Amino acid sequence: MRRSERLIRITKDLLDHPNRALSLSDLAERLEAAKSSISEDVALVRGVLERDGSGVVWSIAGAAGGVKYQVRVPPAQREAFQQNIVARLSDPSRILPGGFLYMSDVLGDPDVLDLAGRLFAEAFADRDIQVVVTVETKGIPLAVSAARYLHVPVAVVRRDHRVTEGASVSIHYISGSERRIQTMSISKRAMPQRARALVVDDFMKAGATAKGVVNLLAEFEAQVAGVAVFVATQEPAEKLVPEYVSLFTLGPLQEGAGVILAPALPVQS
Amino acid sequence: MRRSERLIRITKDLLDHPNRALSLSDLAERLEAAKSSISEDVALVRGVLERDGSGVVWSIAGAAGGVKYQVRVPPAQREAFQQNIVARLSDPSRILPGGFLYMSDVLGDPDVLDLAGRLFAEAFADRDIQVVVTVETKGIPLAVSAARYLHVPVAVVRRDHRVTEGASVSIHYISGSERRIQTMSISKRAMPQRARALVVDDFMKAGATAKGVVNLLAEFEAQVAGVAVFVATQEPAEKLVPEYVSLFTLGPLQEGAGVILAPALPVQS
Repeated sequence: MRRSERLIRITKDLLDHPNRALSLSDLAERLEAAKSSISEDVALVRGVLERDGSGVVWSIAGAAGGVKYQVRVPPAQREAFQQNIVARLSDPSRILPGGFLYMSDVLGDPDVLDLAGRLFAEAFADRDIQVVVTVETKGIPLAVSAARYLHVPVAVVRRDHRVTEGASVSIHYISGSERRIQTMSISKRAMPQRARALVVDDFMKAGATAKGVVNLLAEFEAQVAGVAVFVATQEPAEKLVPEYVSLFTLGPLQEGAGVILAPALPVQS
Repeated sequence: MRRSERLIRITKDLLDHPNRALSLSDLAERLEAAKSSISEDVALVRGVLERDGSGVVWSIAGAAGGVKYQVRVPPAQREAFQQNIVARLSDPSRILPGGFLYMSDVLGDPDVLDLAGRLFAEAFADRDIQVVVTVETKGIPLAVSAARYLHVPVAVVRRDHRVTEGASVSIHYISGSERRIQTMSISKRAMPQRARALVVDDFMKAGATAKGVVNLLAEFEAQVAGVAVFVATQEPAEKLVPEYVSLFTLGPLQEGAGVILAPALPVQS
């Protein structure tokens, strides 16, 4: 097989399988080339991705040796994304009763979901995440996108308890906005035991929901390795979860007034 | 820029942007090469993808000229996927009261979601889909994956009506399993008018939910260009929607008995 074809296949293999170890021996066999040639090809792909800031390719030591691609977002792409989202969401007609911001259209946009998933995956790339957990409904698309780039399963916390979920674990928690006791549950079979979990949601105000998820995950002896939201409100500044990453920060909302939304850099702490 | 680098970047550009027109002039400018060289590069990438059966690259005529990548699933990969899913789901412990099959863990698996999304996108590649519509909750991850490969927004039908959805359109329908009147609603701003819609869900029995979605979409003068589900039951054979694509067919379920699941080829009609 010619080098040009090998490069196309290796690029595709890496991009189609983010955060997964690919064996060099397997690649060599499939692409009918010597392992040394494959290593040179991978080095070329790595060079391009890393120069563009759109990914890193790790070498994995061990018996067979392998490589793993992780997504990165080039700074210019991140800035364009932030400007685009701020422009779209800073529209007073999005202000809903009760201090909510209408975001469902934006959170259904495939480019928004893709880039948010990449940003979350990048922010938690070194946390060895084993499962992404979200709460129905609006956080699910974001969670699916992040889970794709982290290559881990996604588990969905339900606000009710449906027969189709089988045996479930439930807890009660006090919702932040409605100040009343609510239930959340998760299917036992969908949530691994003792996993390192990333909690993903669309919106965080006080953090009561995220706190509820943390408590629910404690029943699975999970370790919450991170909390990531699309938008977090500026107030209250102290959330009920100790640390989180948000892509945007939202100022106080009043019907008839403007929307103050600012990009918030995902910061690892 | 060397050809090897151009090939890597073009492959990445196409794979990162399924079902989207990329301008050859833009590529030529960005990759600092003549349009004729870019055309040759694209032909190489197209050749590899099409020989592998993992994608097609369309040439788009017009002022600037462009290319568009659409995903395809190689038959061997589809067969391996079908065998894997049948093996995992054909487990009597998955049978739930009421004739349901437990699938939440499988539908959270990133590889399953990715391949199901590709298969749905392939099955409806020529239908000019403009939006993917699903019903909360379990269909959402499948819908997000299909929408990624079709590069269209996803709109989520809610079973309740939340303040965060803003102005919504609601209808009532008779649920198939519970035989009672239920509500479904969709946010007006998230659902485009007069769009060609693909309805995606995890499970179809009689098709009452899908029928409800079709009726709801009629309020938006949408044209339902397809209905796609992960699993459809064998009985009743006549569904309430005239045509649909399912990846698997499920035989009658009885607690204590076996699960009879068969691959169903997505057939375009």
